[in-house]
Amino acid sequence: MSAVTSTRIVLASRPDGEPTEDNFRTETVDLPELSDGQVLLRTVYLSLDPYMRGRMSAAESYAAPVEVGDVMVGGTVSQVMESRNPDVAEGAYVLAYGGWQTHSVADGRSVRVLDPDRAPLSTALGVLGMPGFTAYAGLLKIGRPQAGETVVVAAASGPVGSAVGQIAKIHGARAVGIAGGPEKCAHVRDDLGFDVAIDHRADDFAEQLRDAVPDGIDVYFENVGGPVTAAVVPLLNLYARMPVCGLVAQYNAPSAPEGPDRLPAFMGRVLTKSLTIRGFIQSEFVEEMYDDFERDASQWVAQGLLKYREDVVDGLENAPEAFLGLLHGKNFGKLVVRVAPEE
Amino acid sequence: MSAVTSTRIVLASRPDGEPTEDNFRTETVDLPELSDGQVLLRTVYLSLDPYMRGRMSAAESYAAPVEVGDVMVGGTVSQVMESRNPDVAEGAYVLAYGGWQTHSVADGRSVRVLDPDRAPLSTALGVLGMPGFTAYAGLLKIGRPQAGETVVVAAASGPVGSAVGQIAKIHGARAVGIAGGPEKCAHVRDDLGFDVAIDHRADDFAEQLRDAVPDGIDVYFENVGGPVTAAVVPLLNLYARMPVCGLVAQYNAPSAPEGPDRLPAFMGRVLTKSLTIRGFIQSEFVEEMYDDFERDASQWVAQGLLKYREDVVDGLENAPEAFLGLLHGKNFGKLVVRVAPEE
Repeated sequence: MSAVTSTRIVLASRPDGEPTEDNFRTETVDLPELSDGQVLLRTVYLSLDPYMRGRMSAAESYAAPVEVGDVMVGGTVSQVMESRNPDVAEGAYVLAYGGWQTHSVADGRSVRVLDPDRAPLSTALGVLGMPGFTAYAGLLKIGRPQAGETVVVAAASGPVGSAVGQIAKIHGARAVGIAGGPEKCAHVRDDLGFDVAIDHRADDFAEQLRDAVPDGIDVYFENVGGPVTAAVVPLLNLYARMPVCGLVAQYNAPSAPEGPDRLPAFMGRVLTKSLTIRGFIQSEFVEEMYDDFERDASQWVAQGLLKYREDVVDGLENAPEAFLGLLHGKNFGKLVVRVAPEE
Repeated sequence: MSAVTSTRIVLASRPDGEPTEDNFRTETVDLPELSDGQVLLRTVYLSLDPYMRGRMSAAESYAAPVEVGDVMVGGTVSQVMESRNPDVAEGAYVLAYGGWQTHSVADGRSVRVLDPDRAPLSTALGVLGMPGFTAYAGLLKIGRPQAGETVVVAAASGPVGSAVGQIAKIHGARAVGIAGGPEKCAHVRDDLGFDVAIDHRADDFAEQLRDAVPDGIDVYFENVGGPVTAAVVPLLNLYARMPVCGLVAQYNAPSAPEGPDRLPAFMGRVLTKSLTIRGFIQSEFVEEMYDDFERDASQWVAQGLLKYREDVVDGLENAPEAFLGLLHGKNFGKLVVRVAPEE
């Protein structure tokens, strides 16, 4: 097979605070010939997720940053164009970490073959993939909602938040979702079945939240930070649990904004309410829980208990703009870029 | 028996920030006649502990505040002067919650008879009592130190910190203690056997701490807050645990001091290092762990593996001054007021 070229979006420069389209650059490169065990992939769907903001910065995090000049990372649903790995057939669809590019080369052992008959392929990036598993593991392992307890989650129309609330409901808890704007709130309440949906843009958001949790909050699934968290913390019950999987509201902010210093009051609350605050990345729980997740989530989706919504953007060239919008909640559902048609 | 009078120290007014002796007042009252089941106690030792600062304020906490005009609360070793409870003999020494007073009346079911032959009576307020159990439960249940891990604790010459470090050593971990001044540091290192002791008053405290934990920190037992915590947090390892049992450095501070706001950076650290922050009060673990604690701690004390130091102040009238000093680390060891001689 002759050389294949890949069109890719690389990190042109590190953002200083809010990222812009100038931090990205499009290039075309020739891909290398395959070595034994490798596969050549064409990207069909590219997942865009908040964690990618962290990879754009040099600051220490749970994963190495993307180097300036390197292709932006990201999960993909890709199709195998050529295989030198006997376990991965040509033509198969796979879950890969292909990045922001049209084609990629991967070790065949690093991809997971998908069954296109099980569910729409793109769900492998959302409800049946990393975001769904983040919700499942964080809620069940750290949040541990009991029947009758109150679970609160923000970004409730997004892929993680929507699964958190629905899984909480499946376990008999009360689900309160926070989202931006009336349209998303209606979706969270009417389509996803949360008990209450609250618009964080409302002037009286904190009062609405307080009124929505007459018995306090037992689990706050933290994926945003910022003003939502400030409204939640005073409502946390004794022994409440706070799984922390993201802080998208502060990703673009300086690490030590102007005061007052809210840390002492927060720690005081941790002490007087015997709170559990636990940061996590879903990968920590893969070995222990992924098989359970696949079984449960597939079944819940099939039963209509776990609904999902996708926000599909066409064309790799639109990935930077879509990603910048994601950091401000402009997406409505799991944000996916359709890089190429399925067939 | 004719009426017994009790001299008691009551909360005269709530402190505004730093408490002073003016917040206390001494009174003498007649105690009521005993009802069936009650016992009349004379206080021998009164425990002074940092949590009492919280009870002086009206702010919501894990326990109801002391009302203005009421006797200050506190654990005591008391002797039974008269008993109308068949389970509690006259003359027996008991662990009670007698408060800051010379005599008290209690329900016989609320006291615990002590064995004076097992250990010095005052240890029931320290290494073999609530502070020792706070260290035991918080470290083993939340901190979960593994052999070879590094455990850091402040107020390391105090009753909780000293037990935390020694129990960590018993479990094969490395113990780094933080204390105020060279004399306390020498005690922590040379008498208690911590691997390292660091003076938090040193100008280069943060550097000394960093140098003392070449492999980072796996467990930080939080009992002080303030600048010590600020130096610890950047050194916490992936999956580090932080049991939070006290924040004495901030008890007298306003809840939202001037900025910068350190909460976003703290939460960022929780996320990127998958930290566990867990507030607790020892009472949560009594049912599950107190019997184990009594067995283990008694044995460790007898074996010389768990050493303790007491700072005994004579006379109830000196309790306010001693308590105010406790909030600034002026005590050296478990602070106990000898209200009356044992015999």
